[in-house]
Amino acid sequence: MSLDQFFATRISRMIASEIRELLKLLDQPDVISFAGGIPDPAMFPAAAFRDAMTRALSDGQQAQSLQYSTSEGYPPLRRWIADHMRGLGIDCDEDNIQITSGSQQALDYLGKLFLSPCDTALVGWPTYLGALGAFNAYEPEFDRLDPNGNRSANDFRAQAEAKGGRVKFAYLSPDFANPTGVTLTRTERENILQLAEDLDCAVIEDAAYQSLRYEGEPVPPILALEYARKGDIEACRTIYCGSFSKTLSPGLRVGWVCAARSVIDRLVLLKQAGDLHTPTLNQVAIAEVAANGFDDHIAALCRHYSHRRDRMLAALERHMPPGVSWTRPEGGMFVWLTLPKGMDGADLLQHALKTERVAFVPGAAFYADGSGRNSMRLNFSSPDPMQIEEGITRLGRVLRDCSTGGQSS
Amino acid sequence: MSLDQFFATRISRMIASEIRELLKLLDQPDVISFAGGIPDPAMFPAAAFRDAMTRALSDGQQAQSLQYSTSEGYPPLRRWIADHMRGLGIDCDEDNIQITSGSQQALDYLGKLFLSPCDTALVGWPTYLGALGAFNAYEPEFDRLDPNGNRSANDFRAQAEAKGGRVKFAYLSPDFANPTGVTLTRTERENILQLAEDLDCAVIEDAAYQSLRYEGEPVPPILALEYARKGDIEACRTIYCGSFSKTLSPGLRVGWVCAARSVIDRLVLLKQAGDLHTPTLNQVAIAEVAANGFDDHIAALCRHYSHRRDRMLAALERHMPPGVSWTRPEGGMFVWLTLPKGMDGADLLQHALKTERVAFVPGAAFYADGSGRNSMRLNFSSPDPMQIEEGITRLGRVLRDCSTGGQSS
Repeated sequence: MSLDQFFATRISRMIASEIRELLKLLDQPDVISFAGGIPDPAMFPAAAFRDAMTRALSDGQQAQSLQYSTSEGYPPLRRWIADHMRGLGIDCDEDNIQITSGSQQALDYLGKLFLSPCDTALVGWPTYLGALGAFNAYEPEFDRLDPNGNRSANDFRAQAEAKGGRVKFAYLSPDFANPTGVTLTRTERENILQLAEDLDCAVIEDAAYQSLRYEGEPVPPILALEYARKGDIEACRTIYCGSFSKTLSPGLRVGWVCAARSVIDRLVLLKQAGDLHTPTLNQVAIAEVAANGFDDHIAALCRHYSHRRDRMLAALERHMPPGVSWTRPEGGMFVWLTLPKGMDGADLLQHALKTERVAFVPGAAFYADGSGRNSMRLNFSSPDPMQIEEGITRLGRVLRDCSTGGQSS
Repeated sequence: MSLDQFFATRISRMIASEIRELLKLLDQPDVISFAGGIPDPAMFPAAAFRDAMTRALSDGQQAQSLQYSTSEGYPPLRRWIADHMRGLGIDCDEDNIQITSGSQQALDYLGKLFLSPCDTALVGWPTYLGALGAFNAYEPEFDRLDPNGNRSANDFRAQAEAKGGRVKFAYLSPDFANPTGVTLTRTERENILQLAEDLDCAVIEDAAYQSLRYEGEPVPPILALEYARKGDIEACRTIYCGSFSKTLSPGLRVGWVCAARSVIDRLVLLKQAGDLHTPTLNQVAIAEVAANGFDDHIAALCRHYSHRRDRMLAALERHMPPGVSWTRPEGGMFVWLTLPKGMDGADLLQHALKTERVAFVPGAAFYADGSGRNSMRLNFSSPDPMQIEEGITRLGRVLRDCSTGGQSS
């Protein structure tokens, strides 16, 4: 007896991800892993969380902290976030904020909100693997978003209609994107907004890494650019997804959506039907820790990760063979490598694990169409500087070995 | 500009629930509310959670507790649950356990796993409102499950095929169900299993209240009955949804699914795409608190709620006018009232709030077809004994008033 035959049609698209399988390698102590996307736990404000949790579970607060709460989220946290969003140039209030269990859940619920089967989602080539996974559950088509405006709205519209639906949204992460580390210019952001206006679709702005800028001037969020045009968040089509996972703690699973109330009102219903609410205690603790020194903590994180990024870029310069190129991110957690045409990241990974005990994520996983095989994602937030130096040295040997015919794909 | 026109077709079925609106009334101190479904916060093991959280955030544990973790869930918690399930007569191991963010999320993910539009879900008339909400997102048809076996599998199958799909599962809560408080007999459980065998569909057993039995002999879970028939959980079609919300804390949002690996393996993928994982710290704390005195805590809870149930049943005897009947639950948190035909719970609620400041949930919300208007759900876990006495006295006045023509529907 197997229940497989009863599964919904969407399940055929839900496949085990390479990232997931790779995370299992992290437990092997002799592997240097650039495969994760995880923060350095040494930087978690653990003492602040311990104090906040203790208070939330004492002195008459415990009844509220352990009880059911509203689907929108804990009001003081929503107010802190609204204030944070105003600091980014987006005038809004707590009614424009929905708390989610990490920004991954925001992507799931936004897929659920917008996508009927055969609708089109515009995504980058490559894009965040977890966004493809979240959206796939709603059986959309994917088309390739290009911030340089090389394709017309009519072209996108015709493609979507040929697939039997319409373009519902453009999804992108404009700052230090996972997986590429690339930041979009203001002009590119304006291009995306204009495309969305022409297509009359939503924009989903994934800002998971936005606070982690190590150099250069911040570029306004897409939602801030749209707000500047329209003067009213209720008139904006951009939906901003934020997260505390890269700044305070990923394990507590707290993120948010900032958008027009017409979107938030529906997300509340999806949240209620989905898991009732994000854990109360986690929201109480995040609200307290965020309210006490968020900016100082971000500054410390940026110093910490900036050093690791510099080490990785310097090591790549020293150890990569000719024909390999890479991005130079101004923030975030990732560097994206492009290999000579014909090389295959997945084959390389097998080889790298076997011969040099070094791991990364092959690039094809980040492409909706499975292309991009000659690329890979390297994480620099999790390994320490010594591991970065040693790991990139090993990776250089693997690539030189393969470039000279030591391993064929 | 409104994004409403872009929403997926499913969104037209996601409507604000009466329970949600009613919860807002709880903040008004002069309203006695039987409308909630929430535990008494005085019974939360807050000190145990405080100790567990403190340990989880100290002495080298903090890095793990605040970090990303696996989508299946925290292994020690999954092992504790597998042991708990073995105690219920279901031989399984941790690979048969998926941690969810409350059992509400289990219902959402199981809807996502099984339901394509036009598939049929069998549910009780009435059934848990949150199950209808969760399943509605996947655009199914609902048909009426009857544990007495009055309809043949062929009849259900023909109805489902006429709707353009097939019966994917029967959903039910066999112990002290929300909203009725009714417990299914062993024979009724066997009937459901036989129907599922004949229909070749899954059974979703919602066990949210199962631990809260105040009298009578426990009846084996449906999954235990199926396990007894088949001798192997991998051969079972029943999917058991458990929760710590009614026993330890609802605000921490920790529940589980116990099922064959073919189901768990897919739920892991849905969990990964949905929100990556249930918060790590919450799982660590629940695992510790559950491991230290779960049974004693349940015994204390049962004494506490049993007293409230007794008070409510005694008060109903004294204050209800003729023509009103109600269930006598052996456990759980709810009593279900049936009013004389022609009376309308929704109209009564308006009247009750205005004239007597007492609240309950009108019954129609629990019916997939909106019938059952002459019924209401009363919660006895949240109000204290004095409030129960006073609130039922008030409700009696409302009902007598309406029965004698003081309010017409």
